[in-house]
Order: sequence, then structure tokens, then C-alpha cells
Amino acid sequence: MDGVILTPLRQIPNPKGDVLHAIKKTDTGYCGFGEAYFSEINYNEIKGWKKHTVMVLNLVVPIGEVEFVLYDERPNSSSKGSFLEVTLSLSHYQRLTVPPGVWVAFKGVGNTRNMLLNIASIAHDPDEAENCALELIPYDWS
Amino acid sequence: MDGVILTPLRQIPNPKGDVLHAIKKTDTGYCGFGEAYFSEINYNEIKGWKKHTVMVLNLVVPIGEVEFVLYDERPNSSSKGSFLEVTLSLSHYQRLTVPPGVWVAFKGVGNTRNMLLNIASIAHDPDEAENCALELIPYDWS
Repeated sequence: MDGVILTPLRQIPNPKGDVLHAIKKTDTGYCGFGEAYFSEINYNEIKGWKKHTVMVLNLVVPIGEVEFVLYDERPNSSSKGSFLEVTLSLSHYQRLTVPPGVWVAFKGVGNTRNMLLNIASIAHDPDEAENCALELIPYDWS
Repeated sequence: MDGVILTPLRQIPNPKGDVLHAIKKTDTGYCGFGEAYFSEINYNEIKGWKKHTVMVLNLVVPIGEVEFVLYDERPNSSSKGSFLEVTLSLSHYQRLTVPPGVWVAFKGVGNTRNMLLNIASIAHDPDEAENCALELIPYDWS
């Protein structure tokens, strides 16, 4: 999908506890720092749809497993009308970079805790995000 | 301890999964963004001591429980020679800001997974950090 980046991340093994990379300011996909926050998503629950008009998301899942679905409604995008599904976890440890204008929803896949970290390019601002009821974008979550 | 900041963080309840604040660029203690990474620390294991000469650490614990011990050896610090103990977890959900020059070690307290997020002011650079064997700074970890 246009502007969406999936970047493999290093997990550095250590007998006392591993170190997990998330994002460096020199990484592709880094677009400035506004805020870092966690979002938990319980098993089988879905949060979304949400579309940011300014914020670039950089999403990492250090706990559990989260299925992200992206929907491209951008008028000038070559991938307009398409969906992209990406499932992240420690066993598929990648960073998902989402540009503004793309609808995002995500579902808790792991049956214990699921948590994402978003390194957001701007701080939370309700005026730059749009919400849309889950059923209004036709995606089969089953 | 001089320059060390402990900031309570919001946990925003949500039936689908809570949102947990970590850090905004306008927060006290934010000193620029270099890198974000996770460090796991297994039960009863201790990582440290480490002292950064440039990096400011902003530490959050979204999983498990981690005991941080800081030791101040800075020549011009009013708290020179002192230790500070801070235990972070979701039930004591705060951000610990550590300025350069302070020795840091941390221990895994929870008996499942313990993980910290560091929002570091500069990217990892082995030349700006010093390591010191655990037993060389006299702290009773028991």
C-alpha cells in the first residue's frame, strides 16, 4: 500500500532478558516525535476504524499478537480501494509505519495480553483524527 | 536525586483494552528523541551498572515490575553519594527520567515477564556509556 512500510526489527538475545529495537530517529519511516503511548487490545476485540490526517504511526507489538487492517481511501493513491492485513508479534517482530489518510483498525489475536506501542509523529489531537464505525468499511474480520 | 524526575502517567480505561500514556514531547523530562527500545529483565536478574554521559533516559514499565536503583556519583551534585530506589509497574505507573551521569541498574521483580520501554534522547552509542560490575557499587539487592 502506498507509503506503508514494514520494517523488520532486531531482537538482541540476552540471558538476563532480551533487548528489542523499536525505532531510531535515523530509521526509514521515522517522521518526528510527538508522543509515545501503548494501546492494549483484548482478545477478539477490535478497535477502529480511525484515520489520521496529520499523524504518522509507527507501530510495534512487544506483547501478544495484534492483527492490523489498513484500508486505503486516499483519492490520489495508486492503491486506492485496497486492504492490507499485517499481524505483528514477537515472532513476527516488525515495525508498521502508517502514513496519514489511511484507515486503521486492529484486533487482539493473542488470548492473554496484546499491546502495541505507537511512536506517533505528533501528540494526540482529536481534531486531526476521524473515526468510522467498524461495519461501515466492509472487511470480513472472521 | 538531582535531575531525576518521577512523573505519574495516565492509564485510560477502555473495555476493549486500556490506553497507557508514556511520553509527549511537551512533557517535563523530554529531552529530544533518539531511539525507543524495550529491555526485558527476567525474574531476579539484574542488569547494570550503566552510566550514560549524554543520553537522557525516560523509562516506563508496561509489563511486569522492575526495580530501578540509581546511584549518584556526579562531582557537583547535591545528592552525590546517594542511592534512589524506584519500582515501576502498571500499579505504580510512572515515568522515570534519568539525566546523564547517574549510574543505573535494574532488577526483574515480577515472576513472569518484566519489560521497560526507554525513550532515549539519543540513539544507542556505546562510546557514550560506561559499564561497571554489579559488585563494585555497594548496594544490597537482597
